[in-house]
Amino acid sequence: MTPRVTVIGGGTGSFNVLLGLREHDLQLRSIVSMMDSGGDSGRLRDEFGMLPPGDVRRCLIALSEESQLMRELFSHRFSEPPLAGRSFGNLFLLALTEFLGSERASLDAISKILKIRGQVIPVTWDSSHICAELADGTVVTGEANIDVPKHDASLPITNVYLDPPAQANEEALAALADSDFVVLAPGDLYTSTIPNLIVEGVPEALAKTSATLIYVLNLMTKYGETQGYAASHHIDRIHRYGGRVPDAVLVHEGKIPKDLLKRYESERTHQVHVDREALTQLGVKLVESADVMSANSYVRHDPARVGQALMSLFATLT
Amino acid sequence: MTPRVTVIGGGTGSFNVLLGLREHDLQLRSIVSMMDSGGDSGRLRDEFGMLPPGDVRRCLIALSEESQLMRELFSHRFSEPPLAGRSFGNLFLLALTEFLGSERASLDAISKILKIRGQVIPVTWDSSHICAELADGTVVTGEANIDVPKHDASLPITNVYLDPPAQANEEALAALADSDFVVLAPGDLYTSTIPNLIVEGVPEALAKTSATLIYVLNLMTKYGETQGYAASHHIDRIHRYGGRVPDAVLVHEGKIPKDLLKRYESERTHQVHVDREALTQLGVKLVESADVMSANSYVRHDPARVGQALMSLFATLT
Repeated sequence: MTPRVTVIGGGTGSFNVLLGLREHDLQLRSIVSMMDSGGDSGRLRDEFGMLPPGDVRRCLIALSEESQLMRELFSHRFSEPPLAGRSFGNLFLLALTEFLGSERASLDAISKILKIRGQVIPVTWDSSHICAELADGTVVTGEANIDVPKHDASLPITNVYLDPPAQANEEALAALADSDFVVLAPGDLYTSTIPNLIVEGVPEALAKTSATLIYVLNLMTKYGETQGYAASHHIDRIHRYGGRVPDAVLVHEGKIPKDLLKRYESERTHQVHVDREALTQLGVKLVESADVMSANSYVRHDPARVGQALMSLFATLT
Repeated sequence: MTPRVTVIGGGTGSFNVLLGLREHDLQLRSIVSMMDSGGDSGRLRDEFGMLPPGDVRRCLIALSEESQLMRELFSHRFSEPPLAGRSFGNLFLLALTEFLGSERASLDAISKILKIRGQVIPVTWDSSHICAELADGTVVTGEANIDVPKHDASLPITNVYLDPPAQANEEALAALADSDFVVLAPGDLYTSTIPNLIVEGVPEALAKTSATLIYVLNLMTKYGETQGYAASHHIDRIHRYGGRVPDAVLVHEGKIPKDLLKRYESERTHQVHVDREALTQLGVKLVESADVMSANSYVRHDPARVGQALMSLFATLT
C-alpha cells in the first residue's frame, strides 16, 4: 500500500521536504502553520483580516503539478509601487477568498487550479499570534517580531503560546490519525514547527496516532530562537509542546564547508551539535544519518537528498 | 473549410459577439482596441506604464475554455481597500508582464493559461490616446473623458485621431488579410470601434483583404458620441476612418420595449434609426434584419442570437 505521509511545518523547510517527497509514490499531506505575521502575509492579515497565506502558498507550490510558469508566477512579487512587494500568489488567494466567500473554499479551489499532488491543510482556521516569553519575563508577540529578532536575542525563550488559543482544523487531526509517518520538517523551531504543535488538539492527535514520528533536525541554530541548542534541546522542546518524543531523527552526516560556517557565524548561527547519547536518553529510538545538505552556497536541506533519506527511513521503519 | 472570422472592437460589444460565435465551428480572432484610459486599466497605465488591459481581458474571458471559476475570477474586482476596484485579471496580466518581461509574452502565456479558443490580438502595441475634436474646436483627450462624457456633450464630435499615432500590430494585419469575414462588433463608435480603424495600417489592410466586411449596428445612440445618429451616420464614419463601407450590416428587427426605451431616454440615449435607403446609397449591399436583442432589462445584443444571425449571414454571403 502507498505509505501515508503527513509533513508538519511551514516556510522553506516544509517546502524542501515536500519537494523531495513529491517525486515518490506517497499519499502526501502537508499541515501548515498559520501564524505568519511578517511581510506580505502580515499586510494581508492587517488589511483584509485574512489568515496569513505565506506558508500555505509555499506548500502549494511545492505540491503543484501545474506548469513551471504558473508555479513561478504564484511566487512572483510585484516590483513597482503601489503593488511593490505584494505576492501574486497571495493576491490570487485573496481574490478567491473574496469571490468564493471563505478561506476554506479558496484553498479547495486553488488546490484544483494548481493541480496539487496531495493536500495542503492549514493547522487551524483560527486567527492567532505566537507569543514568546523570554528569560526576563518579557513577552514578544507575533512571528515576525520573534523571528527577526527584534527582542534581546541573548535572552533565551522560556515559553511559547498562542494568543488567542487556536483550535485544530478537523482535517489536520484526521490526517494525523490516518498516517503511517508524520514528518516534522526542519525550520525555525519556535516560529515554524512549534506553532503547529501548540494548536489545541494536535498533541492529543500525535499521542493517539499509530504513525511513526520522524523529526528532520535543523542543520543550524537560529539566533534569537535556538542559540546554543544541541539536537537534544530541539527534541526536548518538541516533547514539551507536542507531547511526544520523535521515534526517529534524521540528521546531516556530512561536514558543512568551513567557509560557509564562517559566513553564518556573522549571523551568530552555528551547526547543530548532534548529541546522540542525550537523544537516546530522551527516548529517540533511531538517529539516522545521511548527507542531506544542498550543494549550493546556503546551508539548506536539499529536496532530493532529504526525500531519498526519508524514503530509506520509511523502508527501515516499516 | 472552417470560416476564418476576425472580430474588431473592444468592450462589451466584442465580448457578446465573441461569446455568440465561440459556440460555432469558426477560426476566430479578436482584434482589440488598446486606448482605454478609465477605471483600473487607466490606473495601470498611469502607475505601471502598462498598455490598458481591460478590453483584452474581456475578450480573453469571452474566448476562454477554462473553468467557469477561473473565468469569473479573472473578472473579479477586489472589494476592500487598498486593493478596492482593482481587477484580478488585470493584476494577473501585470504579474505575467513583470515576470516574463513583455506584454506580448504575457498575452501568449495568459492565452495558454485560460485555454483560449482562437486568438486575442491587440490592434497595436503602441501606447496611444484617442482624441476627439468637438464642433467648437475643443479637443477632448482620452477614452475615459470622451466616454463619460466630461465635455459639453451637445457639441458633435467632428474628428477623432490618435495621439501619438499608433502602428498596427503585424498580427492584426495578418489576421485581416487571412479572413473570410471581418465583423465590426457593436460598441461605442468613437471610443471602441473607430480607435481600431485609425491605427496606421488598418485601413490599408481592410482595403486589401478579400474578406467580406460586416457591421453589427448598435442598438442605441450614445449621448456625447452619437446623439442623433441614424444607421447611415455610423456607416459614414466607418467609411471615413476605416476607408471602407461594410458589405453587410446586421440590424435588430424586433421592437425594443417602450418602458426600456423610456428608461434610456433619461440618459439621452435613443434607438438607432435604420435608414435603409441611405445605407444602400452609401454602398451597403445587404441589410440583414434579425431579432438580436437580449431578453433582459438592458438594451444589449444577445450573444446566442447575434451569433446565430451572423452564422446565417456568413452562409448567405459565401
